[in-house]
Amino acid sequence: MSYSYLSHLECPQCGEHYSAEVVRQLCTCGSPLLVRYDLERLKTEWVKEELSNRNPDLWRYHELLPVVEKEHVVTLGEGMTPLLALPRLGEDYGISTLLMKDESLVPSGSFKARGAAVGVSKAKELGVTGLAMPTNGNAGAAWALYSARAGIEATIVMPQDAPKITRSEVALAGAKLYLVNGLISDAGAIVAREVADKGLYDASTLKEPYRIEGKKTMGLEIAEQLGWEMPDVILYPTGGGVGLIGIYKALQELQELGWVQGPLPRLVAVQADGCAPIVKAWEEKAERSQFWPDSVTAAFGINVPKALGDFLVLKAVYETDGVAIAVSDAEMSTEQEKIARLEGSFICPEGAAAFAAARKLAQSGWIQPEDRVVVLNTGAGIKYPDSVQTDPPLLEIGEFI
Amino acid sequence: MSYSYLSHLECPQCGEHYSAEVVRQLCTCGSPLLVRYDLERLKTEWVKEELSNRNPDLWRYHELLPVVEKEHVVTLGEGMTPLLALPRLGEDYGISTLLMKDESLVPSGSFKARGAAVGVSKAKELGVTGLAMPTNGNAGAAWALYSARAGIEATIVMPQDAPKITRSEVALAGAKLYLVNGLISDAGAIVAREVADKGLYDASTLKEPYRIEGKKTMGLEIAEQLGWEMPDVILYPTGGGVGLIGIYKALQELQELGWVQGPLPRLVAVQADGCAPIVKAWEEKAERSQFWPDSVTAAFGINVPKALGDFLVLKAVYETDGVAIAVSDAEMSTEQEKIARLEGSFICPEGAAAFAAARKLAQSGWIQPEDRVVVLNTGAGIKYPDSVQTDPPLLEIGEFI
Repeated sequence: MSYSYLSHLECPQCGEHYSAEVVRQLCTCGSPLLVRYDLERLKTEWVKEELSNRNPDLWRYHELLPVVEKEHVVTLGEGMTPLLALPRLGEDYGISTLLMKDESLVPSGSFKARGAAVGVSKAKELGVTGLAMPTNGNAGAAWALYSARAGIEATIVMPQDAPKITRSEVALAGAKLYLVNGLISDAGAIVAREVADKGLYDASTLKEPYRIEGKKTMGLEIAEQLGWEMPDVILYPTGGGVGLIGIYKALQELQELGWVQGPLPRLVAVQADGCAPIVKAWEEKAERSQFWPDSVTAAFGINVPKALGDFLVLKAVYETDGVAIAVSDAEMSTEQEKIARLEGSFICPEGAAAFAAARKLAQSGWIQPEDRVVVLNTGAGIKYPDSVQTDPPLLEIGEFI
Repeated sequence: MSYSYLSHLECPQCGEHYSAEVVRQLCTCGSPLLVRYDLERLKTEWVKEELSNRNPDLWRYHELLPVVEKEHVVTLGEGMTPLLALPRLGEDYGISTLLMKDESLVPSGSFKARGAAVGVSKAKELGVTGLAMPTNGNAGAAWALYSARAGIEATIVMPQDAPKITRSEVALAGAKLYLVNGLISDAGAIVAREVADKGLYDASTLKEPYRIEGKKTMGLEIAEQLGWEMPDVILYPTGGGVGLIGIYKALQELQELGWVQGPLPRLVAVQADGCAPIVKAWEEKAERSQFWPDSVTAAFGINVPKALGDFLVLKAVYETDGVAIAVSDAEMSTEQEKIARLEGSFICPEGAAAFAAARKLAQSGWIQPEDRVVVLNTGAGIKYPDSVQTDPPLLEIGEFI
């Protein structure tokens, strides 16, 4: 029994293999790298029944994670988030089994914590002492916090318009924080220069292979929480798309292990209609997306005009007979309120986008009433105070309602 | 086997018993009521080993909770929050085992979700259709959200200065929201009138018996997570004090069941020096506290000038050889930053108060280096954006660091 069954890194584009024992960013061909495990050996040495006695966090799947030595794990207790039944909202959509995977219940209030936990842990194991990344806010917050716990110095660059609270998280964690009067792609250019100048570890989305492994655990948890039966549809708000790539990878690994059977769920990539490069590519049956100019949406986390892993997202959608679909900011806002009123959950705008897409796909018949549907809420609504406007009556002492 | 081993309600002041099958607020003597279970029967019918196969939420302890029928449970997946080792902070304090029970990982980002989950579930079971409560913000947010999920109409009154984000949560959930230009005690007067006028269920702190039961699960979880061994010290930021009362009650019930042995942990009630009625009462060896005039602290959740359950908090502290201690807002702020930098966690000011108290008690020798110390962080720092000031450099496109 090993703590991890990590084998090597593989390029999904040119097929090249690399050692996972040293720092490696992209493939020499420019593609992101994927982590491979010795699943054949794992199959003979591990049974899923062992899981029930493990802690309810993502490290319960340590055999399928890249950290080789347990003492390198940097954890804040992330993972095993609720898979909640939403019966009243489901009725409203006309879906009998509507489930929310609620990623608001993780450190920093965003699913970015999963990628950061595994990414930072592996960086620590590889001896990294300084890293840098561009972010739309939440990923930077998570990486800054986990880096602090790991004793790694982080440099974070985010758009000026990123959620304000994420600035506080980065600064409080003691990371170096810079704003840019532009988009995440502009922040990326600044980080690239800083990485080259200072010899830092580049923690940009998919420029290191391990963040996907953290996100992958969402797929592992969904399968375990459904008793190792797969749902019919999974909807995911897609910016960089790492979560969707990760969920797809997780389910494939579980298939190889023989832990799940039958067809994979249809994967749905949800975008905002103000930034929908993946949707456009999917409509054109293209393999890659094109840069989306002048992108704009209130769902800041999915304002990503061109994702490095776009071809992996599109592949996951094509191969599972999924779809890519865009929704408007107004639809998100309506859906956010609907979910709070019917189900008592204050979700983030990106999560609301995925729910709005579920509603549309149920209306169009693409989602059938008997489908088992899982929607990812990627973060807590409380990180987005401006998404709700209130104007309650003010009483003076001695006044009554 | 019953889902719940609920027996009856009991007055801790005059000893009177009441049925738990109908709505009951306070005892006729004015005291809060406590929920009692048939622990003798439970002892013979349930073993703690059964827990390992249950979901990681607070309903895993349903035998020790007051909801009789499983279908009345209103859940958003709350509970089984991490008990995190903080080795670097512990070293800074000179404590070898410093643990944080991290209540930021619950719905609405505050431990108030526990009380709301159990309180609202029981209200639903009792047939309640409308409730009202005063709040310093977080409890109101949690009760509004769970009430929405339960289909109960909630009326929430909070001070104008309560954290802004909690207004959004209440409003989005569709509850009736009112602000008062005063303190939680002023909000309480407005709620009392509304309850009397409209015949609503009074969900004010300790005016219904079930919120304690939700909070109690923090104590159950700490015991389970430590392998049914008790820690030496538990520190808790104390406003209304329901959590401390609940933890004390939980550990007593576990003692009666024979699941834990030996002395109870020393319980520490932590307050802000701008609002320290419990600390003053403890210093005077009094049974009850007195109203604290002109109370003020940035840790808004513990700005409670007079708690209805003060005598229960003081009893828990006295009987476990604990202490009550106040810290300054400056100490909280310093500690909040320290924890983020050393351990990567962005905690709330109330949680920071409890950590600041741990530091002081370790310095004074009241906490010994070998003590196993658990500190409650009662909520997510992201709910308090104003607790951190940042002024990062702004780069234009084309500029570099």
